[in-house]
Amino acid sequence: MPVATQATVKALTPGEVSAAGARMVIMNTYHLWLRPGADLVAEQGGLHEFSRWPHAIATDSGGYQAFSLAERTTLSEAGFDFASHLDGARRLLTPEESMRVQGLLGSDIALQLDVCPPAGASARELNGAVERTTRWAHRCLAALAPGQALFGIVQGGLDVELRRSHARELEKLPLDGIALGGFSVGEAPAAMHRALADVAPALDPERPHYLMGVGTRVDLILAIAAGVDMFDCVMPTRNARNGQAFVRGGKLVIKNARYRSDKKVLDPGCGCPACSGGYSRSYIRHLYVAGEILAHRLLSLHNTYVYLDLVRRAREAICEGRFDVWQQQELAVVRAEAASPADTV
Amino acid sequence: MPVATQATVKALTPGEVSAAGARMVIMNTYHLWLRPGADLVAEQGGLHEFSRWPHAIATDSGGYQAFSLAERTTLSEAGFDFASHLDGARRLLTPEESMRVQGLLGSDIALQLDVCPPAGASARELNGAVERTTRWAHRCLAALAPGQALFGIVQGGLDVELRRSHARELEKLPLDGIALGGFSVGEAPAAMHRALADVAPALDPERPHYLMGVGTRVDLILAIAAGVDMFDCVMPTRNARNGQAFVRGGKLVIKNARYRSDKKVLDPGCGCPACSGGYSRSYIRHLYVAGEILAHRLLSLHNTYVYLDLVRRAREAICEGRFDVWQQQELAVVRAEAASPADTV
Repeated sequence: MPVATQATVKALTPGEVSAAGARMVIMNTYHLWLRPGADLVAEQGGLHEFSRWPHAIATDSGGYQAFSLAERTTLSEAGFDFASHLDGARRLLTPEESMRVQGLLGSDIALQLDVCPPAGASARELNGAVERTTRWAHRCLAALAPGQALFGIVQGGLDVELRRSHARELEKLPLDGIALGGFSVGEAPAAMHRALADVAPALDPERPHYLMGVGTRVDLILAIAAGVDMFDCVMPTRNARNGQAFVRGGKLVIKNARYRSDKKVLDPGCGCPACSGGYSRSYIRHLYVAGEILAHRLLSLHNTYVYLDLVRRAREAICEGRFDVWQQQELAVVRAEAASPADTV
Repeated sequence: MPVATQATVKALTPGEVSAAGARMVIMNTYHLWLRPGADLVAEQGGLHEFSRWPHAIATDSGGYQAFSLAERTTLSEAGFDFASHLDGARRLLTPEESMRVQGLLGSDIALQLDVCPPAGASARELNGAVERTTRWAHRCLAALAPGQALFGIVQGGLDVELRRSHARELEKLPLDGIALGGFSVGEAPAAMHRALADVAPALDPERPHYLMGVGTRVDLILAIAAGVDMFDCVMPTRNARNGQAFVRGGKLVIKNARYRSDKKVLDPGCGCPACSGGYSRSYIRHLYVAGEILAHRLLSLHNTYVYLDLVRRAREAICEGRFDVWQQQELAVVRAEAASPADTV
C-alpha cells in the first residue's frame, strides 16, 4: 500500500498510483481528523470520493501519530490525550473516537487503536501494551461503523511468545484481519526478521496478515516468506523526495555529481513511466538540483513502481509455486544492492 | 507558449503540456546557461532530448534575467556584465555569447539579445535601447547557429512611431520573426493595448509576431486582434502555485474558506484533467492548505488548459472568419471575470 497520509500519495495522482499496480493505499486518520476534518470528508462522500482513489483504502487508527507527532500526549486506559501539532488544540483519541473518525472517513479497512511501545521496552511495558491493545480491540469492535472491515493489531515487541499469545487472543474476536504492529520501531532488522519468521506463520491463515510500516525490500521479501500479505511504507515516496532511486545493482542518489551527464534512465530495465519515458539521470538530476517538482514526480513514480513490481513478482511466484526459488534469487540481488557503496550504478 | 524556465513547465510533464494543446514552450537561456550549463545540455543532445519535449522550443536571449535577476550588472555596447545569482561568478552575456549558448541549447527559435528599458524610461533611453538592439540584431544574425530560427525584438516603450521605425529597421534583416519586447514592464494595461493596436498591424505580415511576457487573457485577446501570433506568460503556472485558478465567472483563490466544502470541480464547464478527473474544490483546497504537490499539479493543469483553450478558440474563430464577433463576446466574459470581486464563484 502506497502511503497517502493526507489523502494523496505525495506528488502522484490516483491514476498514476493505480497504473503502478496499487489496489489499496493507506491514509492517515490522525492527519485527516485534524485537517480537513472527518466531518468534512464525510460530507464530501468519504475518502474515496474526496481523493478520487478508485480502489481500496485502509486507514490507520491515529494512535501512532498521536503518540509520536502530537504534543504533550498522555496515554491512559481511555486513550491518547494530546495537543494537535497544527494548532495546539487538545484532543482525546479513544478507541471509540478512532472508530467514529474512521467511519466518517469511510475507509474500507479500519485499524484498531493500539499501544505501540518503542524498541527496548521492558517486559512490563510490552505486557501492558498487549493487554490494553486487546481491551481496545473489544471497544473498537463495539464501535465499528457498519460495512467497514476492522483489523486487530498484535503487539509484543521481539517477545515471540507474547506476540503469539496476543495473536491467539485477538483471533478469538471477529476481526477481519491481523496486523503486526510495533515492528520497525528501532530494533535491528535481523531481530525483526527472526521475530517475523516465528510469529507470522502462527497467525490465522484464514485472515490477511498486515505488517505495519515496513519496510525495505529485504524486509518485504522475508516477511512475505513468513506469510505476511500486506505492507505499507513511506520509503518509495519519501526516498524519492530525498533524491534516492531504487535501481538494479546499487544505490542511486540523484543529486550526486556522477549523474551530471549520465544519459541513462534511472534503471534501463525498468518499465515505470519515468524510465520508459526516457528521462535521463542527467535531466532528473538537473530538475532535482533546480528544485523542480517534476524531479519528485519522476522519482516517486519510479520508486512506487519498483515496490509494487516487487510484490507483483512475489505474488506471481507464489501463484506459480516457485516462491522459494524466487525468494532466494531476489534476496541475493536486493541484498547486494543494499550492501553496495552509494552511487556505483 | 507555456514557460519552461528550467527546461520543465513547473509541476507538469511534457505529455501533460502537450495534451493541454501546447506545441511550443519557451525555455530560459540565462537559467539554463548557469545551470546545468549549455555544454552539458548540448552533450545530452540539446533541450529536446534533455527535456523530452516533443514539439518546438523557443529560448529567450538571457538579457532580461541578466538585467533583472543577476547581481551587479553593467550594460555596455559589448553586452551585459553580471554576477550569477546562483554563485556570484561574473559572466559576460554578449549577442555572440547568447547565440552560442542558444545554439548549444538547440532551441528551434532563438531570440536576439536586446535592451529592454523599464516603463517610464526617457526618450533618450528608449532611442538608445532601440539603436543598440538593432546593432545587436546584426551581431546575433552573424553568430546564429545553423538551422536555428532567429527573431528580432522591437523596443521603443509606448512611443508608437519609435516602435514602427524600429520594426522597419529590423524587418530589413533576414530575421525569421518579429518579437515585441518591452511591454508589460510596469505600464498601465490600457497604454499597452493602445500601443499594440497601433504597432502590431504595421509589422511584416509574412513573419510571425511574438509578444513577449504577456499576459492576462484580456491582453491576449486584444493582442491577437492587433495581429500578434505568439505569446509566453508565466501566469497560468505561477498563479497556480499561488492557489489561483482561472474559472468561468470570476476569480477563484483556492485557499479561501468558502471552498472548504465546495463539491464542484474548479470549473464545471472545463475539459482539463483536473476538472474532468472530478477533483473537487474542497479536495484541492485541502491539498493546497496541507502543502501537497498534487494541488500545484491540478491547478497548473487547469490554468494551462484554460490559456491554451483560449488561443485554440481564437485560432478557430480566425480560421472560420468570425474573429471579430468572437473577440467581442470573449472580451466581455473575461473582463467581467477580471472585474468581479474575488471568490464569488
